[in-house]
Amino acid sequence: MIFPIFFTFSLLLSSSLASVQDFCVANYKAPEGPAGYSCKKPAKVTVDDFVYSGLGIPGNTTNIIKAAVTPAFAAQFPGVNGLGISLARLDLAVGGVIPFHTHPGASEVLLVAQGTIIAGFVSSANTVYLKTLKKGDIMVFPQGLLHFQVNGDKTPALAFVSFSSPSPGLQILDFALFQNDLPTELIAQTTFLDAAQIKKLKGVLGGTN
Amino acid sequence: MIFPIFFTFSLLLSSSLASVQDFCVANYKAPEGPAGYSCKKPAKVTVDDFVYSGLGIPGNTTNIIKAAVTPAFAAQFPGVNGLGISLARLDLAVGGVIPFHTHPGASEVLLVAQGTIIAGFVSSANTVYLKTLKKGDIMVFPQGLLHFQVNGDKTPALAFVSFSSPSPGLQILDFALFQNDLPTELIAQTTFLDAAQIKKLKGVLGGTN
Amino acid sequence: MIFPIFFTFSLLLSSSLASVQDFCVANYKAPEGPAGYSCKKPAKVTVDDFVYSGLGIPGNTTNIIKAAVTPAFAAQFPGVNGLGISLARLDLAVGGVIPFHTHPGASEVLLVAQGTIIAGFVSSANTVYLKTLKKGDIMVFPQGLLHFQVNGDKTPALAFVSFSSPSPGLQILDFALFQNDLPTELIAQTTFLDAAQIKKLKGVLGGTN
Amino acid sequence: MIFPIFFTFSLLLSSSLASVQDFCVANYKAPEGPAGYSCKKPAKVTVDDFVYSGLGIPGNTTNIIKAAVTPAFAAQFPGVNGLGISLARLDLAVGGVIPFHTHPGASEVLLVAQGTIIAGFVSSANTVYLKTLKKGDIMVFPQGLLHFQVNGDKTPALAFVSFSSPSPGLQILDFALFQNDLPTELIAQTTFLDAAQIKKLKGVLGGTN
Amino acid sequence: MIFPIFFTFSLLLSSSLASVQDFCVANYKAPEGPAGYSCKKPAKVTVDDFVYSGLGIPGNTTNIIKAAVTPAFAAQFPGVNGLGISLARLDLAVGGVIPFHTHPGASEVLLVAQGTIIAGFVSSANTVYLKTLKKGDIMVFPQGLLHFQVNGDKTPALAFVSFSSPSPGLQILDFALFQNDLPTELIAQTTFLDAAQIKKLKGVLGGTN
Amino acid sequence: MIFPIFFTFSLLLSSSLASVQDFCVANYKAPEGPAGYSCKKPAKVTVDDFVYSGLGIPGNTTNIIKAAVTPAFAAQFPGVNGLGISLARLDLAVGGVIPFHTHPGASEVLLVAQGTIIAGFVSSANTVYLKTLKKGDIMVFPQGLLHFQVNGDKTPALAFVSFSSPSPGLQILDFALFQNDLPTELIAQTTFLDAAQIKKLKGVLGGTN
Repeated sequence: MIFPIFFTFSLLLSSSLASVQDFCVANYKAPEGPAGYSCKKPAKVTVDDFVYSGLGIPGNTTNIIKAAVTPAFAAQFPGVNGLGISLARLDLAVGGVIPFHTHPGASEVLLVAQGTIIAGFVSSANTVYLKTLKKGDIMVFPQGLLHFQVNGDKTPALAFVSFSSPSPGLQILDFALFQNDLPTELIAQTTFLDAAQIKKLKGVLGGTN
Repeated sequence: MIFPIFFTFSLLLSSSLASVQDFCVANYKAPEGPAGYSCKKPAKVTVDDFVYSGLGIPGNTTNIIKAAVTPAFAAQFPGVNGLGISLARLDLAVGGVIPFHTHPGASEVLLVAQGTIIAGFVSSANTVYLKTLKKGDIMVFPQGLLHFQVNGDKTPALAFVSFSSPSPGLQILDFALFQNDLPTELIAQTTFLDAAQIKKLKGVLGGTN
Repeated sequence: MIFPIFFTFSLLLSSSLASVQDFCVANYKAPEGPAGYSCKKPAKVTVDDFVYSGLGIPGNTTNIIKAAVTPAFAAQFPGVNGLGISLARLDLAVGGVIPFHTHPGASEVLLVAQGTIIAGFVSSANTVYLKTLKKGDIMVFPQGLLHFQVNGDKTPALAFVSFSSPSPGLQILDFALFQNDLPTELIAQTTFLDAAQIKKLKGVLGGTN
Repeated sequence: MIFPIFFTFSLLLSSSLASVQDFCVANYKAPEGPAGYSCKKPAKVTVDDFVYSGLGIPGNTTNIIKAAVTPAFAAQFPGVNGLGISLARLDLAVGGVIPFHTHPGASEVLLVAQGTIIAGFVSSANTVYLKTLKKGDIMVFPQGLLHFQVNGDKTPALAFVSFSSPSPGLQILDFALFQNDLPTELIAQTTFLDAAQIKKLKGVLGGTN
Repeated sequence: MIFPIFFTFSLLLSSSLASVQDFCVANYKAPEGPAGYSCKKPAKVTVDDFVYSGLGIPGNTTNIIKAAVTPAFAAQFPGVNGLGISLARLDLAVGGVIPFHTHPGASEVLLVAQGTIIAGFVSSANTVYLKTLKKGDIMVFPQGLLHFQVNGDKTPALAFVSFSSPSPGLQILDFALFQNDLPTELIAQTTFLDAAQIKKLKGVLGGTN
Repeated sequence: MIFPIFFTFSLLLSSSLASVQDFCVANYKAPEGPAGYSCKKPAKVTVDDFVYSGLGIPGNTTNIIKAAVTPAFAAQFPGVNGLGISLARLDLAVGGVIPFHTHPGASEVLLVAQGTIIAGFVSSANTVYLKTLKKGDIMVFPQGLLHFQVNGDKTPALAFVSFSSPSPGLQILDFALFQNDLPTELIAQTTFLDAAQIKKLKGVLGGTN
């Protein structure tokens, strides 16, 4: 008696199964396109594609910035591919700093989970928006603008950041300027920095030329 | 004398032929991505990729809902891939019902082609928007909201629905709740329904646990 | 006892009510922007904003094209504003023609509701995709491409067309060329048509210069 | 000597200041459109528009679901308007439940900040994706699909959820069905639920008819 | 001492390298999708993918329109794939004409680099927007609308046009109508042109039927 | 006899005229939203809204960068509002430099109109893409990435840049860091620059603190 409904809807749903819908879990072995990774076949998708445990592990902050960034972007977390969102974890030891950087492809909201964080961004009009954030505070950094986070207290700080894209990108100012082979003279010309300053930072960060 | 124009424009157009443009007819054998199916090579595309005759055939309504949904989504109709639109046909026998459902990825406009249909949707503010629709009336159901259609008369009804996506998705409330292995206790906790009611509907719809 | 849940959720929902969500019914008296009309206040929205009856009325086909287009775009049907979809009705008397035209802002799917329609579009590669459509057939016309519909039989035809935008636009080739003050000489230069042909059609359609 | 550069760039930047760029902080008193609230004048924007402290305060869970949702959507947090992202806080007391619901306009990523949460969603194919999440785990819920969260342990749980839209919407299944005036008979027809079950839940949740 | 920061960030960046971000240089040998070509592997991308020299070469204008269009769309210039922009070069000899055409997928801004150009477009309301442009002037042509450019002086003219899409498409009115096998009678019916005029232009442009 | 067609289509077109379509010329006096400026009433739009002559005038390069940027963004050129595209003019005197900067909201294509330009951008992976461009060469700079342009020869250079947005934004690195009141110590912490270097550049560019 109830067979017909199964038949009708099964027909609908099984054909839909072959379609692009609901989600597009990243298949890292197939081609990528401008909109993201290719999709895994629905039959191969499991709940573990939608869950990621890597943000539960503190990042290693024994480095010169005394800080660590742990991403859960589409490249690490296949379930967010195509869904317009991703996360990352920020660990800031005492004195820790996430230096000036941008995300070329997303806006960001930072949530302070522990400690105190001084955060700021600069607008196209060169206005600084600067705030000391306490546990539970959130702050939004509009897409593509230079921003930073600094531990503002004498205890470790922890934050989680959300992005409006599964692949927000991350361009750290110092690394972009000083950790490659862009000639010192050209950097000097295009940043107004002194050559000595540039060479010093190239030395620290591993740049050449 | 006119060769040059052919040469110039042919150059332009033949190189454009290799490009993504005008349309992207679904190639069901190549990878899918978040934006849809891969495209067929232009040389293999024919007019029949842009025409679909499946909506001309009445769906089989001899089932418990006395209704049938026949989709012409990108999974069935390759020509709409990437074009932001798709259609479906609704057949409602006397007493027929398209039960509460949502389309996670599209808004819908329903057109009554025959008979009378009582249709409604509920907003995030829990307001009900309910109307009895006659032949020729159209009604829009905003993206992602719960809605339903019921035959409102003593004659069969026919409707065509258009979607703002080639793959709108379809989540039928009863099937989502009662046609899988989600444990009865968990359904009870998250819907406030009585366990007896849940078990009864799992029985009807083929769910377990 | 159950007051707290009302309180908590009411708080949530009443604040959400003030927000942009679910839908944005057109307020024709407030400013328009690139994304559409401004939204009516939610409290003023009724079910009638989501329902439109104008497509139930046959268009007047006693004109030189023996056809009529009746739109249900955002300008006529406030409920579709911002929702990525709209509809229109095509009436084609015997011999009726919807002449070559484009929709600059949307793809279209045509559904034949009655009679026979010969429809075609031309791609950027100048390939013609031409088909005779029977009742129940659907055909997609990709965004921005020139297309037409012609009554293909000895009886009146009726079709409904869906668009992937609430404001698809409509540029009818003959009207664009011959129903304004664009100088005949300039039209001749840019279309290769003979001046006599241009003047003849300007005469029929009301153009000057 | 350096005046000219100020002049040239000031000219550029002051004219840009008048433009739509960088951000569009919500002006709750001007018209809304399909893309969000109108923007505050840049001169009136301060850092406090980009910071929100409301998620630092535990929600009141003394209610029947023993849970609370505290949103930081564009309606509460003006800085996220137009930026494609928003957040909310979930408090789940022991036995707390966020019942089955959808977000019509956004995908969601949940981050467990404290305790244990059992979370699940159902796809269009009616497959259940269910997982017990520990502190630090994240889980993504694709746009528009039914999902729920339940406290999975004997201690309170806390989670933060991020959305791929500043106005994701929230449709709670039970409230949509039972907290309005949709007639019992129509609910019965469109959900297959027994009338007694419907009336019972209407009684609990404040529905009529 | 500084090893940890390299380690931490290298980890981040190398995993990001595998991701969709920053750019998606076209791989012409992999499948295309609705959003564009598949991406080259980042390791194979060089600066030459982002640079194109083809627009530095004058097009051949010894043809009936005394004009040439040289595109730098995604099909010719792999670096713009997925980035929402492309360019083309227009050469107009004395008496040169870019005949009436549309770009189905993009708006266009024309910049006069040399000479004088008379340009115009027609809106959906059939209004003509016509202007004589001098060197340095720019003019925008909204997406999908019919427009043309004519050399307005006794010297060659040169222009560069920018598009809001990497694959704007190009439909030249005369070629769409007269350079294929669309039957003369059907063209006559759908354009109101005389059969003799149609046959004449089919003869010039290589059409049949 | 031909009156009916005027009537039918006039009806259609006059109602369409009230709609959002074809274009949305910026009305600088009405509210802005996330998608751009409000639209001028169609009746007030003239061809001059679509034409801009400001890029025909050389910028004043007698300043420390020996360069000038002249924008034709939506804030200056109302016709591009909502159309996904804008332009700017770059003048580089001998020794001129457009220092490191980003456009938070758009990709850019640069066209060399005169002279030689050395241009480069840095990816999220810190790879430098550097090229010496001759007249007629074009180069694309993906959205949000740091890039610069330097006059590469002993003669003035001229370039035109196109953007994939009507409001691309412009964040010049030195101005963002050194032309506001961000405390020297905080800049030092977040850029690794020496305080002396920071104070020197604040002095040159007008920053405080």
